[in-house]
Amino acid sequence: MDMREKKLNGKVIFDGKVVKVELDEVLCPNGNKSFREVVRHHGGAAILCVTPDDKILLEKQFRYAYDEVIYEIPAGKLEKGEDPYQAALRELEEETGNKAEELIHLTDVYPTCGYSSEVIHLYLALNTKKTKTHFDDDEIIETYEVPLDEAKEMILDGRIKDAKTIVAITYYLMKYKN
Amino acid sequence: MDMREKKLNGKVIFDGKVVKVELDEVLCPNGNKSFREVVRHHGGAAILCVTPDDKILLEKQFRYAYDEVIYEIPAGKLEKGEDPYQAALRELEEETGNKAEELIHLTDVYPTCGYSSEVIHLYLALNTKKTKTHFDDDEIIETYEVPLDEAKEMILDGRIKDAKTIVAITYYLMKYKN
Repeated sequence: MDMREKKLNGKVIFDGKVVKVELDEVLCPNGNKSFREVVRHHGGAAILCVTPDDKILLEKQFRYAYDEVIYEIPAGKLEKGEDPYQAALRELEEETGNKAEELIHLTDVYPTCGYSSEVIHLYLALNTKKTKTHFDDDEIIETYEVPLDEAKEMILDGRIKDAKTIVAITYYLMKYKN
Repeated sequence: MDMREKKLNGKVIFDGKVVKVELDEVLCPNGNKSFREVVRHHGGAAILCVTPDDKILLEKQFRYAYDEVIYEIPAGKLEKGEDPYQAALRELEEETGNKAEELIHLTDVYPTCGYSSEVIHLYLALNTKKTKTHFDDDEIIETYEVPLDEAKEMILDGRIKDAKTIVAITYYLMKYKN
């Protein structure tokens, strides 16, 4: 059965710097009509940086929507049409002062499929070189090196709650440390 | 250092059925001013249902924002102030026809911390009983039993991309199958 919904009509509610919000009326395959609230987003790139002694880079950053300081791997949003690989290289260096010669693609993750179009591209960085950080004007980030085993504990006890961070760490463990 | 940002002023852009969109001007701790686009959401509950023979329930559902049919564990959004445990029990039965006597809380996940306030509460269901499904008018869902090992492969090869689904499966594997 074709599960697709057809757009009947739609309007742009808000066109911001980060998100574009649309409200579409759709026809469901069972003949019912419904509305879909869609948050359009250009996507993001996030980097799991693992040191030779099995530590990972974790950032602490205040996240306004949660009113909370949380742990995350380095990440940044893409400009429209931007190559996620290049964005990942740039964000890793700007936010942590670590330059990677190359990145390994881990997987792509759909953070919240019910209303957002965002895709987060996850990469692995090994053997990075120290350079220097370069933050945006409204970006305040502290970076820590955390042993992989400790990061695993932080997921299990709920200290790490960020989805891309949990997916990157557990994906890496499953693929490379099993 | 206090990393918090202070709200200077804000406005509601859109107040929908699923999301509420706000645009706030904030004062960063370094003295800079910035704008924050915030998608307010009441949160969700998702359930990893594991059968006695180590299979999990995976749903296929069309997701309009991605224009794609994707694999997910059963889940639903909370009404304002709703208890996520009760919502999880309800969604599991409505979407899959499986009734759980009790659920085990796994963890809470922040799907996309850059602009959304959504929290997804993850639960584990064991020893469920067959009842019957009850879908919303605009909900078309197919449910499959998938062996845990196969689900792991589906994460590794990118067939499963949904964040809550990957977090629930990998969290369960780390905590209970290690």
